[in-house]
Amino acid sequence: MAMPKGPQAFPRSEYLRRLSVVKAEMERREIGVLIVTVSPNITYLTGYTARSGYVPQGLIVSLKNEEPTFVVRRCDAPSAIYEMFIDRNRIIGYPETLIGNPEMDGFDAVIDFLHDNGLASGGVGLETKFLAQQSVEKFKIRMPQATIRDFSGCITWTRLIKSDLEIVVMKEAAAIADAGILRAKEVIRPGVREADAAAEIIATLVRGVNGKPGTDVSDFHLCASPLSATPHTRWSEDVLHQGSQVNFEFGAVRYGYVSALSRTFMIGKPSERLRRVHEGEVAGMEAALAAVRPGVTCGDIATAFNTTIKKHGFEKETRCGYSIGIDWLEPTASIKEGDPTVLQPNMTFHLLLNNWIDEDFGYALSETFRVTETGAEVFTTLPREIFVM
Amino acid sequence: MAMPKGPQAFPRSEYLRRLSVVKAEMERREIGVLIVTVSPNITYLTGYTARSGYVPQGLIVSLKNEEPTFVVRRCDAPSAIYEMFIDRNRIIGYPETLIGNPEMDGFDAVIDFLHDNGLASGGVGLETKFLAQQSVEKFKIRMPQATIRDFSGCITWTRLIKSDLEIVVMKEAAAIADAGILRAKEVIRPGVREADAAAEIIATLVRGVNGKPGTDVSDFHLCASPLSATPHTRWSEDVLHQGSQVNFEFGAVRYGYVSALSRTFMIGKPSERLRRVHEGEVAGMEAALAAVRPGVTCGDIATAFNTTIKKHGFEKETRCGYSIGIDWLEPTASIKEGDPTVLQPNMTFHLLLNNWIDEDFGYALSETFRVTETGAEVFTTLPREIFVM
Repeated sequence: MAMPKGPQAFPRSEYLRRLSVVKAEMERREIGVLIVTVSPNITYLTGYTARSGYVPQGLIVSLKNEEPTFVVRRCDAPSAIYEMFIDRNRIIGYPETLIGNPEMDGFDAVIDFLHDNGLASGGVGLETKFLAQQSVEKFKIRMPQATIRDFSGCITWTRLIKSDLEIVVMKEAAAIADAGILRAKEVIRPGVREADAAAEIIATLVRGVNGKPGTDVSDFHLCASPLSATPHTRWSEDVLHQGSQVNFEFGAVRYGYVSALSRTFMIGKPSERLRRVHEGEVAGMEAALAAVRPGVTCGDIATAFNTTIKKHGFEKETRCGYSIGIDWLEPTASIKEGDPTVLQPNMTFHLLLNNWIDEDFGYALSETFRVTETGAEVFTTLPREIFVM
Repeated sequence: MAMPKGPQAFPRSEYLRRLSVVKAEMERREIGVLIVTVSPNITYLTGYTARSGYVPQGLIVSLKNEEPTFVVRRCDAPSAIYEMFIDRNRIIGYPETLIGNPEMDGFDAVIDFLHDNGLASGGVGLETKFLAQQSVEKFKIRMPQATIRDFSGCITWTRLIKSDLEIVVMKEAAAIADAGILRAKEVIRPGVREADAAAEIIATLVRGVNGKPGTDVSDFHLCASPLSATPHTRWSEDVLHQGSQVNFEFGAVRYGYVSALSRTFMIGKPSERLRRVHEGEVAGMEAALAAVRPGVTCGDIATAFNTTIKKHGFEKETRCGYSIGIDWLEPTASIKEGDPTVLQPNMTFHLLLNNWIDEDFGYALSETFRVTETGAEVFTTLPREIFVM
């Protein structure tokens, strides 16, 4: 039987709107055909979230056609039919002979499609920055009539300003992240294994809230003493104990969109040092959010934070956040001093104030927010406190 | 305070053994210094599993030194001190100015280290295949005295044959994966949301078994009707019902090492078609495992499977598996017809017989095994059955 279309995260008009922005940029750059290979960009333009991007695949956007065409490993075509808004005839499955084959891969199927459809000449856009050198070479060698133009980053920058529909989805994800911290309040106890606490919280992030499940597992970090200053470890095999500090940074997901959140937990009385850092960081968070409005730059937000915590006697070396959306971090605007990105309504950021102060001492506080017409709207409803157990 | 060394997954002697194999290959290729950038290869040579590899980092192996040096983003240095077997002085944190900076990145810190230590000349190995073109260019331009030699795949192929210590870890992971399927037997019921079932099973994979927790969340797929033929979707927002078929493919993790497992569940009576596929696939699994012994090729295993299911009236387009270890799939040996890789003891494979037959009909059966002196040792203890609920 034929695969039905699944429930779509967004209406067709939303995807066509996104495509129209990309196509306008293609025209401006004299690119008739664009080959999109970066997975979150494929999600953005079509709704596809299946994890097939570890082998080559390409979404082909042509100025000649309203809908793009997706060339994907054949066994993944049913997921594409189910998830993507495009007509099933625009999903081309390539054969398994291109997998684990040292001579050819899925990009050969993409190139074949372009040749077969008279699209392998003129200006052809490619996200070269994120492709292996040999893949870029393959496109150049096999399409000698085409002028390959780098389109790296262009769609990613388009993703920077969200539609109201995207904001709804990110808020759904944020409500799930909140539930994760609330679950942590129930399970972070002396004598509990870190893994058992992680299991409960991750399960909450999958179950979701308000009848809306998480649709994927995102990055998850439970960093307990002595690892409170390690941003990228998962959890250890230790047991929590009186005096353990536990820093969380995790995300919740709806349709590929992530809302991220960080909070600090303490089993037992927080030290004077931790209290002082906390006070400085909360003041810094408030100052940063107060600085947000259309027209100021990402750098201005960072300056507001850094100036404030300096008054409290601290510094933070790492940047204060970044644009967030599909698959967490969008590699575009950074909330760091000097970043010239000018804020506009519906940009969304992970204001990541986590501060890895010493090798064995760090502090976690982060929130996901959107820029409004007049300021910032924070997605979490949680208090900014050290959760003392 | 200084970060202590955490519990190590393997003794120092194990890491030095692995390094000695890599160094021998470096000598053979006249490479004095090797820059390892592929994350699972860094895990293999040092024990480091923190998820910092989304920004540039490099493990520098020199023939002059017993231990390698790790150049990593400064905020990730504490995790490296905690997890890696090497001396803390061999962990070099680079400053945050190299993050989100269009002019320079962490590879500049790697190159600076090589220059500062007289290592930027002569044969320098680089895993070019997995680097962006502009990064490869940077190494070439900034080290004009060096001859950059491609080392892509070399360490990955070294990982193909596991030590007995690695096998122990993979069996620990396999026991956790088994527990995941046993949990599925408890929670797959009509009226249960797919996300709620997924939450319970994922939590089991994190908690682990036998006092040994999972150390990470791995890939997880709960593919229920009509998505039983989509290998790479997570789960849907649907509710399971009488007549739902549920295909699982997931992995459990210990210290970065994954054991993977797939099984098919059916709520209600399996159709005649599903029963016939199951019979053919189980016979194919048995034939494939019976073919395993040192000296035969990966291709021979695939032939044994394919010949058997053909007798049962079926075919499978996708390959029958691949080498498995750190971070799941090792991009080396494929279990597919014609693959010339000759089996040797302690190679480990994910024998992935999942068969996506029609758009809306697939079947899941896979196991992780090792090659022994005389045959195959399967890591799962589960029966090969359709789990009927």
